[in-house]
Amino acid sequence: MPDAVREALSRQMINHRGPEFAELIASVTRRLKPYFQTSNDLFLLTASGTGALEAAVVNTLSPGDRVLSISIGVFGDRFAEIARAYGADVVSAGFEPGRAADPNVVARLIESSGPFKAVLVTHNETSTGVTNDLASIAEVVRRTEALLLVDAISSVGSIEFKADAWGCDVVLTGSQKGWMVPPGLAMVTVGARAWEAHRTATMPRFYWDFAKCRSYLERGQTPATPAVSVLFAFDAALDLMEREGMASIFARHRRCAERVRQGVKRLGLDLFADEAHASDTVTAVKVPEDMDVSRLLKVLREDGVVLAGGQGAQSGKIFRIGHLGWIDDADVDEILAALTRALPLARRVSAKG
Amino acid sequence: MPDAVREALSRQMINHRGPEFAELIASVTRRLKPYFQTSNDLFLLTASGTGALEAAVVNTLSPGDRVLSISIGVFGDRFAEIARAYGADVVSAGFEPGRAADPNVVARLIESSGPFKAVLVTHNETSTGVTNDLASIAEVVRRTEALLLVDAISSVGSIEFKADAWGCDVVLTGSQKGWMVPPGLAMVTVGARAWEAHRTATMPRFYWDFAKCRSYLERGQTPATPAVSVLFAFDAALDLMEREGMASIFARHRRCAERVRQGVKRLGLDLFADEAHASDTVTAVKVPEDMDVSRLLKVLREDGVVLAGGQGAQSGKIFRIGHLGWIDDADVDEILAALTRALPLARRVSAKG
Repeated sequence: MPDAVREALSRQMINHRGPEFAELIASVTRRLKPYFQTSNDLFLLTASGTGALEAAVVNTLSPGDRVLSISIGVFGDRFAEIARAYGADVVSAGFEPGRAADPNVVARLIESSGPFKAVLVTHNETSTGVTNDLASIAEVVRRTEALLLVDAISSVGSIEFKADAWGCDVVLTGSQKGWMVPPGLAMVTVGARAWEAHRTATMPRFYWDFAKCRSYLERGQTPATPAVSVLFAFDAALDLMEREGMASIFARHRRCAERVRQGVKRLGLDLFADEAHASDTVTAVKVPEDMDVSRLLKVLREDGVVLAGGQGAQSGKIFRIGHLGWIDDADVDEILAALTRALPLARRVSAKG
Repeated sequence: MPDAVREALSRQMINHRGPEFAELIASVTRRLKPYFQTSNDLFLLTASGTGALEAAVVNTLSPGDRVLSISIGVFGDRFAEIARAYGADVVSAGFEPGRAADPNVVARLIESSGPFKAVLVTHNETSTGVTNDLASIAEVVRRTEALLLVDAISSVGSIEFKADAWGCDVVLTGSQKGWMVPPGLAMVTVGARAWEAHRTATMPRFYWDFAKCRSYLERGQTPATPAVSVLFAFDAALDLMEREGMASIFARHRRCAERVRQGVKRLGLDLFADEAHASDTVTAVKVPEDMDVSRLLKVLREDGVVLAGGQGAQSGKIFRIGHLGWIDDADVDEILAALTRALPLARRVSAKG
């Protein structure tokens, strides 16, 4: 987090039912919308991104509703699992790990197994470092009546997102990703078709209820006590982001991601993700046969570089380099240098010596 | 918030799946338990207190379960509303606003309308400034098989709470109350009987699931990304609280509350709450006939003192003085002095001049 954001975090508490807070939430809400390219409602929930996934589901669906889950990894699976927990009838479209969802496969699935009340999709799958071609997927979904609910947790704010042009009905993300802000807030946009679905959706809800969010926001408030300090941080981070400009932010993410990918390959490592859909916010790297990945991560951590291992089915098979938010070429070079130092130390010693 | 807490808030972000975080959450969890006087499990949820109310309900109950709601105000009503939203069959025991729940009435209700799967009760009702006699209510509930789910949002940490001695099955609170920490985290304790209920409870849950909390906590993690900065603040605040000592904290809250009540009465104002059950964390004051309460709050705010109006049915009829967390005699005197200055300015001018 940049200094200005950390400073904002330490601001003295204010009354979340007072005029100062009303100004704060109005400003953050208004200034967030351009990153979603939306004129829809936007709400801040005190929760992590997973809470917003749950909010998207329970506000628009009823038990028994048929839902298509387009999952390309752990976070896509989580979205589907939430819908199932609330009684949705979920059809899963799975794809090979490391690959993006194929819009043609989605189209065929909708034709063969539809109609669906909603389609759940992850824009950028953090667990595999793959960005789905959301524009094409959305185009397929928009030929039907299905709602399009989008997990954009690790994309919005860092890479281009066109909620309205693509026709996304609900889009959600979290404060801790590209925004250079600590975790604690989730943001969700709600369009007209989602509101229409909300009217008749019967999944139980209270904390996540969009209607409550809307009526409180009209008064400059949130239904429950919000994570005020994180909101302070957001306000400061949006200042920085506006100064840099959206186009520059996206270009910087593209450039850093390319630098990571090229650097990793130069080290003789293989990328996990299909390069045509490699994410500009996180890069997954295959763990070579002779490498002890937990040792690699430990050595890196001691060297001041925190990378992540694989999740779920990819545990032990990949490691992941996050490159979103407050990052630039020099940070990438630092990561690559640390990786260069760490790799020889993490090779498994053969049993024979 | 004290300086040490604000400083902790501004700490640089850490990986919430790493060893430093594991140490942090273990420390905060362990050090929170004494304030609940419990050896039960304790989980931190990234949410406000309302989210924890929802968690208490959905983890222990099934749709159709008969539930007794002991409500003495807005927050008690909210607890019941959440249970209803998830399909519980809620019987409401209401009491006169400003009074505590009568344990004898509760006993009779249980006898006449029971058995109940759970009893929902607010320890300290922030909307009316009343503290329920939870020991006596718990004693009545403990004669039955009913679970006791306790909203302790504005009590634990500031006034004495004996979760295990009283036999509370689930107790929940929020970071923004007595802990001198910003909002963003809720804490919930879960006892053996609640775990037993969890096994068969069928209300849908994902984000709030206690079983996920438990299995992640064993690895020093939370299921979803936690509000890390608020946790930093908590760690620092617990240092301060331990230095002061639990008994001293409670004594200070009692002393400040008494000072508020006496001061308010000296100003010729009437207390709203039955004095036998007046809260040591928030005082509700009746608005005199000739007073414009929104003007009063505005004048006070301009004078640097933020008080709250009435909520729900008490809107316009009371105003409330919070006195919990980082507060001492001098702060109380400042509030009373500001009130002394503001009162004459907030009297309604008679239409006749």
